[in-house]
Amino acid sequence: MVVPVRATIYRGEEDVRIEDVDDPRIEESSDAVVRITHGAICGSDLWFYRGYEDWEPGWRLGHEFIGVVEDVGDGVNTVKKGDRVIAPFAFSDGTCEFCRSGLPTSCHHGDFWGRTNDGGQAEAARVPLADGTLIRLPEEIASSPELLVASLPLTDVMSTGHHAAVSADVKPGSTVAVIGDGAVGLCAVYAACRLGAERVIAVGHHESRLDVARGFGATDVVDSRSANALEQLVDMTGGGVPYVLEAVGSQASMDLAIDAVRPGGSIGYVGAPMAVDGIHPGRLFAKNASLAGGVAPARVYIPELLADVAAGALDPSPVLDLRTDLDGVPAAYAAMHERRAIKAYFVAE
Amino acid sequence: MVVPVRATIYRGEEDVRIEDVDDPRIEESSDAVVRITHGAICGSDLWFYRGYEDWEPGWRLGHEFIGVVEDVGDGVNTVKKGDRVIAPFAFSDGTCEFCRSGLPTSCHHGDFWGRTNDGGQAEAARVPLADGTLIRLPEEIASSPELLVASLPLTDVMSTGHHAAVSADVKPGSTVAVIGDGAVGLCAVYAACRLGAERVIAVGHHESRLDVARGFGATDVVDSRSANALEQLVDMTGGGVPYVLEAVGSQASMDLAIDAVRPGGSIGYVGAPMAVDGIHPGRLFAKNASLAGGVAPARVYIPELLADVAAGALDPSPVLDLRTDLDGVPAAYAAMHERRAIKAYFVAE
Repeated sequence: MVVPVRATIYRGEEDVRIEDVDDPRIEESSDAVVRITHGAICGSDLWFYRGYEDWEPGWRLGHEFIGVVEDVGDGVNTVKKGDRVIAPFAFSDGTCEFCRSGLPTSCHHGDFWGRTNDGGQAEAARVPLADGTLIRLPEEIASSPELLVASLPLTDVMSTGHHAAVSADVKPGSTVAVIGDGAVGLCAVYAACRLGAERVIAVGHHESRLDVARGFGATDVVDSRSANALEQLVDMTGGGVPYVLEAVGSQASMDLAIDAVRPGGSIGYVGAPMAVDGIHPGRLFAKNASLAGGVAPARVYIPELLADVAAGALDPSPVLDLRTDLDGVPAAYAAMHERRAIKAYFVAE
Repeated sequence: MVVPVRATIYRGEEDVRIEDVDDPRIEESSDAVVRITHGAICGSDLWFYRGYEDWEPGWRLGHEFIGVVEDVGDGVNTVKKGDRVIAPFAFSDGTCEFCRSGLPTSCHHGDFWGRTNDGGQAEAARVPLADGTLIRLPEEIASSPELLVASLPLTDVMSTGHHAAVSADVKPGSTVAVIGDGAVGLCAVYAACRLGAERVIAVGHHESRLDVARGFGATDVVDSRSANALEQLVDMTGGGVPYVLEAVGSQASMDLAIDAVRPGGSIGYVGAPMAVDGIHPGRLFAKNASLAGGVAPARVYIPELLADVAAGALDPSPVLDLRTDLDGVPAAYAAMHERRAIKAYFVAE
């Protein structure tokens, strides 16, 4: 008997709906089925919502979730029924060359949630490659409603912000600018501070978000909409920013990152570059600035970040400023699209 | 009395000439005047020669030279009259923030040879910031005609090839592909081998140049004009090249570098990107490949590379396959333009 579960489905531009789908079941011995207790909407979900990506009606949505294991295949060894688990935004086998070298987002057998795979904005999901993908939450997190919410951003935005800082090679004492005040940008501020940056300049244009940045440790803010944002960054840093974290993925933000970076400096970019036309490498060439980043290997970062959450040393939950339930997800997409919320999440328990 | 010296002058596309110019004299206390004994033509000189850059008739040419100090200003302490010296392709003060941090090509007071500065394809040149710029050659090199020629590529192409390998962070045991079989590409092959790369794939299309690459240590060659060059690189490396050194600066070479680089890999690019329209960062983003490089800080690399030349462990002179004198420089430009020579040099003693 197939029991329907409810899931968020893409129906078209600015049109996502909660619909019944077949319940997830073990299909491969490496699968798990997870009942989702916490999920979130990502800024990158707005790309397809706004029509920047060629999505097909009927595709599943959501790639950030925490849940409870309901069932596992015969080959699954690291999680069991009843475990509270967190999933990174991509699944991966944990054993291939790329997984072993710390790049599970390039896993030979992995993929991203959603589209024709199950998604995380749902009541439950089939998790392929459960051993390589899921991480069991420690008891002090699993038993705490607050720490569960604090852990939810690790599925993507906190790991992605961390990836920007790691990719730029931010060091203790660094001066850093973060372009973008979305959830990833705010988490990048937090990550840079956590890695010991001394001065962190948040560049954005929403006062309430810049307040979150200050709470995460930003020492300065620059209004990205001011005509002289670039000049401010260059002046504040005496000639250019040594470490620039790009957390938007637009041409304007990439241009600002390239123009603001100091000779010999580095750009860590993690904004999915959906709205970037292109960059001319000559702009980086003349000043020997490097460009690194990409799809964050969240699976690698989560254990380290979780330890800080468990210890009370990391709490990125201020980026989650709109709580809803699964039925509220479509309205939450609209709220994020209209910039009424930084990031929405739902709790189902 | 002003004694004319002869220098190579830009007169227009495919038109460079040897002309009389005012003799160089000490103008600032930090200047030196150098009588040029060895000079070379750079592949990057072909950009203006071919009309890719907006040069003005009358500008001086040449940025690769070795010579003998004829005179120094009162403030010069590290070289004296009679010293045999080598100059990197840019001059720099050696004391500013960027010079101290290893990036003399971004020196606050430095510049490049040629244009309205003196050039290295001449009988003599005024050298600004002599203490920061010139390096006195050790006696075993200064007294050896062969080692002087072996040192000449360190002024630019050998340092630039080394910069590609350093920027990509080539490590002992690495697998590397070098895109381009010009002098810089060949030197990048040499540099990668010198840094301990185990497998170095030279990508080019001139059999005689690929022979030089083999002599420098290339273990494999791929014909860049074959329709499946990319597939060959991917197949040879089981899914992509961990370290790609881009040494051309064309859209095709940059595209090949981006497409061939392995997930998590790095591109060290040193080909002046004069003929690159742009790159879409999404192509690097999906696979977390990094891009680093630029104008090589040759002044920093020369002492280390010179030590190897003096020890007989480094001899990049096979890239210098056309010897002439100063009067032969215009014809040598034509030979390089028509690909009849990899790299031309002149000796004036």
